[in-house]
Amino acid sequence: MTATTLVIFGASGDLTERKLIPALYNLYVKDRLPKDFNIIGNSRSEFAHDAYRDKLRKGVEEHSASSYTAEQYDAFAAHIWYVAGDAKEPEAMAALDAFLKEHENGGADRLYYLSTAPFLYEPILNNLNTCGMNHSPDGWRRIVIEKPFGYDLKTAHALNDVVHTVFDESQVYRIDHYLGKETAQNIIFFRFANAIFEPIWNRNTIDNVQITVAESVDVGRRAGFYDGAGVLRDMFQNHLLSLLALTTMEPPSSFEANALRNEMVKLWKAVYPVKMSQTVRAQYEGYSVAEGVALNSHTPTYAALELHIGNWRWEGVPFYLRSGKALSAKTTEITVTFKRPPHMMFRMGNVSHMNSNKLTFCIQPNEGVTLGFEGKVPDTAQETQTVHMDFTYDTAFGEHEIPEAYERLLLDAIIGDAALFARGDGIEAQWDIIDPIIKGWETREAPPLGLYRRGSWGPEAADHLLARNGHEWHLRCGDSARK
Amino acid sequence: MTATTLVIFGASGDLTERKLIPALYNLYVKDRLPKDFNIIGNSRSEFAHDAYRDKLRKGVEEHSASSYTAEQYDAFAAHIWYVAGDAKEPEAMAALDAFLKEHENGGADRLYYLSTAPFLYEPILNNLNTCGMNHSPDGWRRIVIEKPFGYDLKTAHALNDVVHTVFDESQVYRIDHYLGKETAQNIIFFRFANAIFEPIWNRNTIDNVQITVAESVDVGRRAGFYDGAGVLRDMFQNHLLSLLALTTMEPPSSFEANALRNEMVKLWKAVYPVKMSQTVRAQYEGYSVAEGVALNSHTPTYAALELHIGNWRWEGVPFYLRSGKALSAKTTEITVTFKRPPHMMFRMGNVSHMNSNKLTFCIQPNEGVTLGFEGKVPDTAQETQTVHMDFTYDTAFGEHEIPEAYERLLLDAIIGDAALFARGDGIEAQWDIIDPIIKGWETREAPPLGLYRRGSWGPEAADHLLARNGHEWHLRCGDSARK
Repeated sequence: MTATTLVIFGASGDLTERKLIPALYNLYVKDRLPKDFNIIGNSRSEFAHDAYRDKLRKGVEEHSASSYTAEQYDAFAAHIWYVAGDAKEPEAMAALDAFLKEHENGGADRLYYLSTAPFLYEPILNNLNTCGMNHSPDGWRRIVIEKPFGYDLKTAHALNDVVHTVFDESQVYRIDHYLGKETAQNIIFFRFANAIFEPIWNRNTIDNVQITVAESVDVGRRAGFYDGAGVLRDMFQNHLLSLLALTTMEPPSSFEANALRNEMVKLWKAVYPVKMSQTVRAQYEGYSVAEGVALNSHTPTYAALELHIGNWRWEGVPFYLRSGKALSAKTTEITVTFKRPPHMMFRMGNVSHMNSNKLTFCIQPNEGVTLGFEGKVPDTAQETQTVHMDFTYDTAFGEHEIPEAYERLLLDAIIGDAALFARGDGIEAQWDIIDPIIKGWETREAPPLGLYRRGSWGPEAADHLLARNGHEWHLRCGDSARK
Repeated sequence: MTATTLVIFGASGDLTERKLIPALYNLYVKDRLPKDFNIIGNSRSEFAHDAYRDKLRKGVEEHSASSYTAEQYDAFAAHIWYVAGDAKEPEAMAALDAFLKEHENGGADRLYYLSTAPFLYEPILNNLNTCGMNHSPDGWRRIVIEKPFGYDLKTAHALNDVVHTVFDESQVYRIDHYLGKETAQNIIFFRFANAIFEPIWNRNTIDNVQITVAESVDVGRRAGFYDGAGVLRDMFQNHLLSLLALTTMEPPSSFEANALRNEMVKLWKAVYPVKMSQTVRAQYEGYSVAEGVALNSHTPTYAALELHIGNWRWEGVPFYLRSGKALSAKTTEITVTFKRPPHMMFRMGNVSHMNSNKLTFCIQPNEGVTLGFEGKVPDTAQETQTVHMDFTYDTAFGEHEIPEAYERLLLDAIIGDAALFARGDGIEAQWDIIDPIIKGWETREAPPLGLYRRGSWGPEAADHLLARNGHEWHLRCGDSARK
């Protein structure tokens, strides 16, 4: 059997320590890694192999979902190696390749992982090309590229051009770790492994859809990076649009990578250009004086958008997306609000209108699905009340830990299943939605940059965005929302 | 304000003590009875007023859902009176009327309650007529008639004729206490106070529907009555067919009595004649030697039917109804099984077909609604598992006690709302379904009378009834079914 090598560029970074290595450790413990498997870390810092293994031990201890044992880590760490060198220099890349070849003992499959700062993607790709590391008769070559993929449509397109000079699209695995989340994938299963939801999953029955990705943390130590990006690049271009696609795409014929991604790309391409009046941008109070943030920065830490999808299924249905930092709670949830019953056969009492059914996917926390519907209040004649049918991962799957997204994604890349990775044309379709908004916010048509209190649910303007359509934001998954 | 009198015929019986008076006591405690309200008990037994009040105290203590207090019962019992007399004798009825008039102090609304043996219905009705007790300028006159209403189509029709000689249909309240159950009514609210179920509530999406009304008790002290009736008369003609109608009728335009009952009657009239091959009958072992049971009795204590409804919505969908005594557990539940997903985009592994979505109404116990659907098993690539979204009365309404059916029904009769009572044509439409089956069971085409073990789920023939259509019985509500 061919050996498998995972080469991590940017191996001294946070992501490697906090996510990649703990995920790989879990896969190792679960005996899911190929038998002959090696991890080669690369970055400019100098480490002896053992020093590097020890540095990573802490991350596994802290972040690995499976219980850490020193013995198991030692066994796992025996597969880890470190090669120092500046991968944007061809010589360093050639040296790395030499090390790999020596260790691969006559050939191996290789997965490269770009976990560096984004400006290094292009030189590293070019060096992989120069050193002939992009193809081999001895085994497959694949590359995982971390987000962000591009800074706007133009740079994403340019990066794709470079990627495609070096690799065939079928070799490329662009990370959107939201697709690796169990609960995000479960949206697909919920819709397409069941027969009862698809018939009501359209403009005839659905009134509006909301996606909230709220963070309670502020930009913290990422201020420098964040200030150059803003919430649309950080959260919308990838995560929110991926959740949107999972929720709204047409049924793929299979879970095969291109069958699935064709539908996602088709969906993004059907999104209408967003008008400035359908956008809200804001900053939390104190952001602009935080360390690392430019003076008078106009970078939004919060955004809310109203999107519309121009296709037979969704025409006329508003999709509200919001995300921000320093908000009241950390929660990622999708709520599908259905239309009201067309006719009310019951006496309504003082109520002016019926409540709508609401289906909520709790992506995190309190992972699950919940359906709000009207039930009869016992011991009344015709009084109704919103009650809930709840499904929770806790109850259904017990102690079974929900694995981290990276565990699934790393394994898929090793296996060669790109279904849960962004495709080149998908990334560009996402930017095609987001880029004009970012550019529009630099014009006179831009909505004012609002301020919001830390620990609030964002600016009032976001409520107005929905209110003018007779809608309101809905929260169900956070601990406080559940009573 | 006009006084209100409730006259109970058969007032020394079990039903009065165990159900009617405790329900009235609860209504009294909740301050829902009219201010000037009196209960007059009648039967042949002699009781002084106080002796009668004391006799009823025990029933309230034991069966009243609200907490009994001696003080509250005394206050309530001050409204109770007793008049001995054989109501099938005109003189006794006249004497009763005289007592009522004396106590009513110049006129009152009157609700008669026939809680006697069924053979007394006709003479009592005629005497109410003879004594002019069926109409009055001084207040309304209504009559509640307990089940069973008739013994077959012919006798039900004849009884309706008598009823309609004495009362207008608008004065008549025929009891089917299943309609008074909160969870049965909630079926209507579930279907018509929500917008998302009605679009999938038809032959396009639904594969089959099952109604189980299982009792764990045997016929016990009711053997004498039961042996002359059997399970079809005792449970199907009323309760199971009512549940069927609530589950399948078209949306009424309002909860108004006739709007609702028009739809129920329409549904029953659309049921196709049941073929003998679509019926199963059985007796639990030991029934035929029980005290009160005729030697070699052929009375079935269990039946299962396959019904079909001939209308646009339900053509081709099998409805399986079963009920029996001495079964494994007491449970009343309705399960709607949906069709399988038309196409499976996921790898199926070793599984030969997808599971179907199942929606179950737990009428009792564990009152609630539960939806079985497929979810992705965490930490697998594409494995699915049936999981459940649950709504329970316990969780939604807390300690709030679910009132007994009779509480609601008595109050409705007092208020004048007949929505939850059987209408004359409805009773006949029910008999029109059941009567030919009972008659068919006396012919050579009858299925064999099976035997089943006490504490089982009935005869194997009932499983075969479904198996030949590729279906199987489903249980979800009982404690054991919930794991």
